[in-house]
Amino acid sequence: MTDREAQHGERALPEATLERLTVYLRALEAAQQAGERTVSSETLASAAGANPAILRKDLSLLGGSFGRRGVGYDVAGLADHIGATLGLKERWRVAIVGAGNLGRALAGFSGFRGHGFELIAILDRSPAVIGRPVAGLRVRPAEDLESIVAAEAVNMAVLAVPNAAAQSVCNELVAAGIRNILNFAPVVLQAPADVNIRQVDMSRELQILAYYAHQGVGHQDAVPPLAPE
Amino acid sequence: MTDREAQHGERALPEATLERLTVYLRALEAAQQAGERTVSSETLASAAGANPAILRKDLSLLGGSFGRRGVGYDVAGLADHIGATLGLKERWRVAIVGAGNLGRALAGFSGFRGHGFELIAILDRSPAVIGRPVAGLRVRPAEDLESIVAAEAVNMAVLAVPNAAAQSVCNELVAAGIRNILNFAPVVLQAPADVNIRQVDMSRELQILAYYAHQGVGHQDAVPPLAPE
Repeated sequence: MTDREAQHGERALPEATLERLTVYLRALEAAQQAGERTVSSETLASAAGANPAILRKDLSLLGGSFGRRGVGYDVAGLADHIGATLGLKERWRVAIVGAGNLGRALAGFSGFRGHGFELIAILDRSPAVIGRPVAGLRVRPAEDLESIVAAEAVNMAVLAVPNAAAQSVCNELVAAGIRNILNFAPVVLQAPADVNIRQVDMSRELQILAYYAHQGVGHQDAVPPLAPE
Repeated sequence: MTDREAQHGERALPEATLERLTVYLRALEAAQQAGERTVSSETLASAAGANPAILRKDLSLLGGSFGRRGVGYDVAGLADHIGATLGLKERWRVAIVGAGNLGRALAGFSGFRGHGFELIAILDRSPAVIGRPVAGLRVRPAEDLESIVAAEAVNMAVLAVPNAAAQSVCNELVAAGIRNILNFAPVVLQAPADVNIRQVDMSRELQILAYYAHQGVGHQDAVPPLAPE
């Protein structure tokens, strides 16, 4: 437990559990779409590359009881509970800062819509792209960040700007009241302790792939989905 | 240990260790650039949000001894050893499949060059983009995949295609002899067991950020770099 978690009086779920929860959730939703009402612990665990013991431990951290011996897990109930745990019942109003290739790719990415996430605005500093249509929105001027955040109640930001601009844009986001930032720049951002920052580091992913390639061990970090397609 | 690892007679490093190794490496390189020859275990560990005991355990998994009591770690030697462990001494000849916004963003991304990685080709199916310049290359026809892989000795591929095309492109890559794939489509790919697949799942990152946001606990998964900027 970090000092910050201790202060908060609550222990955050382990990162590995969080990652598996997102996979369980996707598998449960696939099962729902396939019309299944219950799912076995073996099936659900294997969707996340885990075993039933790990699944039970993960779910025990959420509190409550979701499985019945011989019946399995209630698909809808468990999906609902995991969604609530992950904070997906809240309304996340997302602004993407940076309308370059990456920002535009993210704006069009289906995972950035639904599940409580709504793409509210995409901003850029360059007059060449301001006003251009992206994913059903128009690119707005980055200099209007503060007023856009206030007027549109933006509460989450995605940073897709060049490395050299990342820290200053982060500062502007924090000054505008944003406390949740997904950072795609390979730059370690400095921010006050109450700001949540999550970094997606593509070179890290490439290096870890190189490790497995070098080992010569076939390694697939995703496994077949729960529901037949 | 999975069956596959047991068959291979070698235990793969834990995922958390791998992630920290990439951070140690970046910190060591920053220290090198700053002209530092040794670094303390406290400083190096904190770069990865870890403590000296975790650092020592991580490094013990690599074999060898890199630190001297009272002196610290040899920056160049340790960077070299971590790079070798991660397979970064090999030459990774990378093809990006998909020259849409995401593919173009990745092609321009600095992390995809250097460290043993070389961007060899970017391919797309659409006549509208074939031949267009991207990051110093020209987009080549996806239908030439097999001959490009053979002629250019491509040994790693990045999948940046629409979800619906991901599995069929994966099949083509495998048929062309590619055994290492970094997949950006939120689709679970089916591939033979000797193929390494790593998935970057942006909606998972967004959901985990939402979890921390919902908790109200400031959580920053990256920490200040080792070397002053």
